[in-house]
Amino acid sequence: MAKPTVSLPQGTRDFSAEVVRKRQYIFSTIRSVFELYGFAPLETPAMENLETLMGKYGEEGDKLIFKILNNGLDNVDKLEQTKAEFEKVLAGKNTKGITERALRYDLTIPFARYVAMNYGQLTMPFKRYQIQPVWRADRPQRGRYREFYQCDADVVGSKSLLNEVELVNIYATVFEKLGIEVEIHINSRKILAALAEICGGSDKMVDITVAIDKLDKIGIEKVKEELATRGLSDAQINTIELYLQIDGSNTEKLSALKNLLGDNEIGKAGIDELEYILNYQPATSNQQLVTDFTLARGLNYYTGIIFEIKAKGVQMGSIGGGGRYDDLTGLFGVPNVPGVGISFGVDRIYDVMEELQLFPSVIKVGTKVLFFNLGEAESKAAFGLMQQLRAKGTSCELFHETTKFDKQFKYADKKQIPYAIMLGSKELEEGTCVVKNLINGTQQSIAQSALLNFSFDA
Amino acid sequence: MAKPTVSLPQGTRDFSAEVVRKRQYIFSTIRSVFELYGFAPLETPAMENLETLMGKYGEEGDKLIFKILNNGLDNVDKLEQTKAEFEKVLAGKNTKGITERALRYDLTIPFARYVAMNYGQLTMPFKRYQIQPVWRADRPQRGRYREFYQCDADVVGSKSLLNEVELVNIYATVFEKLGIEVEIHINSRKILAALAEICGGSDKMVDITVAIDKLDKIGIEKVKEELATRGLSDAQINTIELYLQIDGSNTEKLSALKNLLGDNEIGKAGIDELEYILNYQPATSNQQLVTDFTLARGLNYYTGIIFEIKAKGVQMGSIGGGGRYDDLTGLFGVPNVPGVGISFGVDRIYDVMEELQLFPSVIKVGTKVLFFNLGEAESKAAFGLMQQLRAKGTSCELFHETTKFDKQFKYADKKQIPYAIMLGSKELEEGTCVVKNLINGTQQSIAQSALLNFSFDA
Repeated sequence: MAKPTVSLPQGTRDFSAEVVRKRQYIFSTIRSVFELYGFAPLETPAMENLETLMGKYGEEGDKLIFKILNNGLDNVDKLEQTKAEFEKVLAGKNTKGITERALRYDLTIPFARYVAMNYGQLTMPFKRYQIQPVWRADRPQRGRYREFYQCDADVVGSKSLLNEVELVNIYATVFEKLGIEVEIHINSRKILAALAEICGGSDKMVDITVAIDKLDKIGIEKVKEELATRGLSDAQINTIELYLQIDGSNTEKLSALKNLLGDNEIGKAGIDELEYILNYQPATSNQQLVTDFTLARGLNYYTGIIFEIKAKGVQMGSIGGGGRYDDLTGLFGVPNVPGVGISFGVDRIYDVMEELQLFPSVIKVGTKVLFFNLGEAESKAAFGLMQQLRAKGTSCELFHETTKFDKQFKYADKKQIPYAIMLGSKELEEGTCVVKNLINGTQQSIAQSALLNFSFDA
Repeated sequence: MAKPTVSLPQGTRDFSAEVVRKRQYIFSTIRSVFELYGFAPLETPAMENLETLMGKYGEEGDKLIFKILNNGLDNVDKLEQTKAEFEKVLAGKNTKGITERALRYDLTIPFARYVAMNYGQLTMPFKRYQIQPVWRADRPQRGRYREFYQCDADVVGSKSLLNEVELVNIYATVFEKLGIEVEIHINSRKILAALAEICGGSDKMVDITVAIDKLDKIGIEKVKEELATRGLSDAQINTIELYLQIDGSNTEKLSALKNLLGDNEIGKAGIDELEYILNYQPATSNQQLVTDFTLARGLNYYTGIIFEIKAKGVQMGSIGGGGRYDDLTGLFGVPNVPGVGISFGVDRIYDVMEELQLFPSVIKVGTKVLFFNLGEAESKAAFGLMQQLRAKGTSCELFHETTKFDKQFKYADKKQIPYAIMLGSKELEEGTCVVKNLINGTQQSIAQSALLNFSFDA
């Protein structure tokens, strides 16, 4: 056979039918729950103006944004223009001459841009969900791709903790529907701020957050070393260790935390937030709400409650996360719009469902019935019957050419089609057809007029 | 109010909830019909290697492909590297140093690339559909965008005309379901080839096709002028005019064409194709199959039957098109894979449906019920009821804060929520709640236990 002379860019993937169907199952489950909770869809373009994205994800993030080459610069016939633009870049002025647009890096900044542009028209609180791909020029590796979907729900324009309660319940409901048992870890940035305050001042917050964030990966001893390197005293490190060791039920943990933080005002505010949310424990049986003071969510822009989802029974990083932020759109000229949001890690959810075999088998079935092609007049009659079945919602195919049975059976087998219908010259004369169940091998002859009421429930 | 300091790139669009829902209605209608006909989904990445795309869409197309800047070249700290790469480009060698990837320009070439890469594994005939955005650096204008969705179904690996019949029926069924009356215009490239042969040879095919393709826009006189400019004689132009004037029913047209083309072999083959397909006229009442010898489909790669869809009752270009091609994957090292495909013009279908008011009103509704927030204990009780309604599939919201009725009514009104449920201190005590229909203003007090069986069918 001829060898293909093409390939895919590194870190990108084709999704074949079975994978698309499984992914759609995840997306549509999440989408239906977002809708149940009154969130409405938004779609933004793949491209944003470069200045909308730059400077929003840190220096490292800026480098990982895919930029679009301005048009015409790769035109070897117009090298003078290209040269002029490149010389400006080389002079260090700016890069506008070569790139003005880029592919979105996440869904949060495009959402912020949308809210800023449409603020006067939106009904507040504004609840939107968004399920679209994003692109990052990360080094590709196992489980990390340059194109992947994000799946976000955010509420902006409200400081009410009811929003956090709703988001917790969205997590619980989605994972209940998908059949994944999870722990919904919650903490508050206010508690981390309080810890920083009792450890020498709020300027220590970043040091402490960054170190705690690595606990899962490097363990307590290395975290302590890092804290020491970052200039914290033994007494302060000791307090942080006590904090990280808090254990027990949610009630026990909150009680221990109250002892540790004492009268710290921001600490009390954080504890109040957690207690409010725990008071609305979701009713779903398999999902557990867990206060987790080791949860930090890295260097993100969060200011209040933070979330992270861990699947039980599999080795896998978090499959979702989020939290409350202040001033989402201030960067774009519209200040004081607070919000809270969550995100689902679809690629990891897919992997968990594969590992635990949670995908329902029914979603894999495409075509239900293959009509065999047994001659011109026969296939014309088959076509008429097939159109009636399709009108009733049954997915059918008529084999594309008259050929031997073998080849037609093989096609049905490869495509995992559960039923075959044969209509040869004898059946054409008798007004019947043969329905064969390809899973168990049984077959029966029925009147063509009875076919519409036949149950194809393989 | 503060003024936003951001904007969208030219030619791109945000889609708000109502538009997303209407677009999803179109997509899911098309998708469900594709599935009924045994087509399976495929998704390819937004980015392809540049060499996969370049040279496939003509010189003009190459210029309209959005290229991705290689990473790091916009980094003002590493100008030496940038300079070296740009100097290679300036030396006219190649542009690999600045761009190696690009955004897909259509869905056909990525599909061809996929088939070439996976040829040995695919079950032939391979029937796939694909609904994804594409990007083109066209000058933006009314109805023309730089990011838009394509919606394609193709069968490869089969020369059978049954595939064309199936595609005609897909068109008929989709537009029947959407409520749009259309004419499905069909012709065969073989008939155009025959016309070229009787007008001085097959080398005239491109000239004739390009001129005929402009008939709708410029009229017959200008087409004749263009044919003259392209070197056709008066007698030849006269023949083409006779060809273009063929009119009547499908049968009358075919009969006139037979007279005109006489014994031309390729002409006969084309007429046989059309007659085969007309023999399988779709059963849908509002969709009409029309032979149209003026249909040419421009400079595309089609070799057999070609399709184009026109909506009745609106002024609008074609809302779909396609045809048969040979050797889809030869460009990628896998020769002799014939195919046939169709495409739906989703943006235009959307405009037609808006103009004819064909979108069902039910798809616009997001949240069905707003629970008013009338105090802490009251809203906690409301939350419990709401979770029960959601579990039954009713989309609900609880207003995010305790505030005056006015504000909560206004929120419901702006979001077009059809029902409000009030649960105040009196109702809390009595175990009741007030259900208010916000469309007609009626309200009733019912037991909380009866709420689950209440019918919210506004």
